[in-house]
Amino acid sequence: MTNPMQAKKRPFKGHEAKHFLFETDADGRVATITLNRPDKKNPLTFESYEELGDLFRALSRASDIRVVVLTGAGANFSSGGDVFEIIEPLTRMAMPDLLDFTRMTGELVRQMRACSQPIIAAVDGICAGAGAILAMAADFRIATPEAKTAFLFTRVGLAGADMGACGILPRIIGQGRAAELLFTGRVMTAAEGHAWGFYNAVHERDTLLAEAQKFARTIADGPWFAHAMTKKMLDQEWAMGIDQMIEAEAQAQAICMATGDFRRAFDAFAAKTKPVFEGN
Amino acid sequence: MTNPMQAKKRPFKGHEAKHFLFETDADGRVATITLNRPDKKNPLTFESYEELGDLFRALSRASDIRVVVLTGAGANFSSGGDVFEIIEPLTRMAMPDLLDFTRMTGELVRQMRACSQPIIAAVDGICAGAGAILAMAADFRIATPEAKTAFLFTRVGLAGADMGACGILPRIIGQGRAAELLFTGRVMTAAEGHAWGFYNAVHERDTLLAEAQKFARTIADGPWFAHAMTKKMLDQEWAMGIDQMIEAEAQAQAICMATGDFRRAFDAFAAKTKPVFEGN
Amino acid sequence: MTNPMQAKKRPFKGHEAKHFLFETDADGRVATITLNRPDKKNPLTFESYEELGDLFRALSRASDIRVVVLTGAGANFSSGGDVFEIIEPLTRMAMPDLLDFTRMTGELVRQMRACSQPIIAAVDGICAGAGAILAMAADFRIATPEAKTAFLFTRVGLAGADMGACGILPRIIGQGRAAELLFTGRVMTAAEGHAWGFYNAVHERDTLLAEAQKFARTIADGPWFAHAMTKKMLDQEWAMGIDQMIEAEAQAQAICMATGDFRRAFDAFAAKTKPVFEGN
Repeated sequence: MTNPMQAKKRPFKGHEAKHFLFETDADGRVATITLNRPDKKNPLTFESYEELGDLFRALSRASDIRVVVLTGAGANFSSGGDVFEIIEPLTRMAMPDLLDFTRMTGELVRQMRACSQPIIAAVDGICAGAGAILAMAADFRIATPEAKTAFLFTRVGLAGADMGACGILPRIIGQGRAAELLFTGRVMTAAEGHAWGFYNAVHERDTLLAEAQKFARTIADGPWFAHAMTKKMLDQEWAMGIDQMIEAEAQAQAICMATGDFRRAFDAFAAKTKPVFEGN
Repeated sequence: MTNPMQAKKRPFKGHEAKHFLFETDADGRVATITLNRPDKKNPLTFESYEELGDLFRALSRASDIRVVVLTGAGANFSSGGDVFEIIEPLTRMAMPDLLDFTRMTGELVRQMRACSQPIIAAVDGICAGAGAILAMAADFRIATPEAKTAFLFTRVGLAGADMGACGILPRIIGQGRAAELLFTGRVMTAAEGHAWGFYNAVHERDTLLAEAQKFARTIADGPWFAHAMTKKMLDQEWAMGIDQMIEAEAQAQAICMATGDFRRAFDAFAAKTKPVFEGN
Repeated sequence: MTNPMQAKKRPFKGHEAKHFLFETDADGRVATITLNRPDKKNPLTFESYEELGDLFRALSRASDIRVVVLTGAGANFSSGGDVFEIIEPLTRMAMPDLLDFTRMTGELVRQMRACSQPIIAAVDGICAGAGAILAMAADFRIATPEAKTAFLFTRVGLAGADMGACGILPRIIGQGRAAELLFTGRVMTAAEGHAWGFYNAVHERDTLLAEAQKFARTIADGPWFAHAMTKKMLDQEWAMGIDQMIEAEAQAQAICMATGDFRRAFDAFAAKTKPVFEGN
């Protein structure tokens, strides 16, 4: 291969994760990350925070993965940072270490937003603390009726300002509802989350993962170069004025119009066939 | 007339448009723009994009028009950019021309937002691609139960980042729902659009236009100088901090308090009559 | 006391207000402000605007108050600026005085947002004009089924751009619904306000104040230093980019992790007791 930008890319199919499960479907387009300590409701640890962040950063160079499904084993999504494994050590740390920790957890959200693949959180059961943040930081969220999402930080004496929640959650469900969840730490039910726009859909427990992967497949078979641009611009325009957004999108879309995928889509339309995208 | 700023103004009643219909009510306060190629579901073309943008810019100098209703002929709003008339030529253009095109379409949204008149989109049937963007860029949206709105760009291999959609749509319906519509290109039903705040109201097909014009008339008979300020500030404060918003509105409202319309409204209230606004 | 920052603090229990009622519960944690001219539906006046703003500013130094409930006497919240006491004098003022006035009213919203205590608006009956703004500027809103909220400014010939409404209201209920309320001045019903996220809950009239105070108590018994940080960051991140939010929260939460309240919460969790927070 003579293209040095493509030479940087590599397949992630077969990648093995240490602190969670990482699996792909047959052609490696859809990756499923499963938080996998079901006896403790899939808590996050110092190690899993870091490995998750590193993985999402590395996925920018994946030659195969186009969509990520993020879920938990055993009918719970994630209980967040474990009280004894995470909170207790934090209560004894000096400020520089505390700041290192909050930057490390924030870095996970940053990498989820920066990675070019859309992320689908499939949420069942407990989805609390940092677990709720992971769901929030995904691009889509689907849930079971049993999903119980709580931004619990206030319950351990902390602020709702954790990993971007005070900025991101209000844009998803509105400023007043976000304030209530962040100040009280109360559970948002699946029905509330669906009505408020936190969840894109609700499915029964026994179909949740299949539905998440079916949805992922739809996205994965679409124009993934353009999808990556959609994701980038959704974040990029977060704090822009309207005129700046419009110019930013004029540039972003002109880039997409210069791709072969755009022509492939037109050709398929003209030929009444299904387009096959190549990401270039 | 000796006021040079008023001398720049002119009536638009009687204005004739080339690529769509332009009509006004009896006193010229409410203009109705009708996309009018019903056999093709009112697609946008290179020419209509440009004429629409020019018209909205010119309306800033209208001495009569106070509200614009934007609709489509034949039970559809607009199918957006025609695949053969717009997409096909784009697949053959070099980058400078592509960027000229995306800037021209973006300019239409910019002029819709910059024009001082509130815009009401009356949406029936198909409302797709650039058609969905026009609805999004309006100040109000009313629909029939048959309205089918889809941000279709992904279906032709492009990003959802088109004409400001990644920035504007999330503020109307929330970040998670906007992401779903922009990544999948799926139809948002009228019921969804109403529940999510995209549509302000839903009316049966045979009353849609009358309801749009009745609503337009209510706005048109209000304080249109102040209305233009409301529209300006809704956009102006898009990316301001809270303290800056408050100062910006202190200035904006002080300007409105210096108008005769403010005194006219008080006088009418004191006399228990209906105020007649003069826009000064 | 040798801590000069604590020496600046003083209790507000027993504070007497001139232009409204100010009461606290037994230990002074929950303050209730009652707009109290029920015969005129609790209008705001030049004097009450200023005293309210001064009070919210002063509360930053309260050693006791942790939450504020804001309500109105006699089954109405507030009718806003009185037409004869406020509007009439304004119609005769020169620009510098108009700007002084709009800055003074904006300052009230600024102080409500800047004060460290969360504010709960308990809304019954009429909630109009500046009254609607006070509800909007609170952190939480609960209502009765009879609550009628209207951003009336357009009815007196003014813009919806009043005290921050064009920036703040869209973040609570979405851009399209906010535009409708601000351009038309129409009533938002309690059912609409609840469905749209303006109200956090709706309670019957005879339980409204008790529910507000029960909710206030829950917040007041929580980690109020961290709560103040949550409130600060919800505003601080209003117009930040995503990366900036994440760094801002890494710093904010590291500060909270350095408090004794964080350790107290962990100790209580480990001991299976209820934490008692000290705000330090």
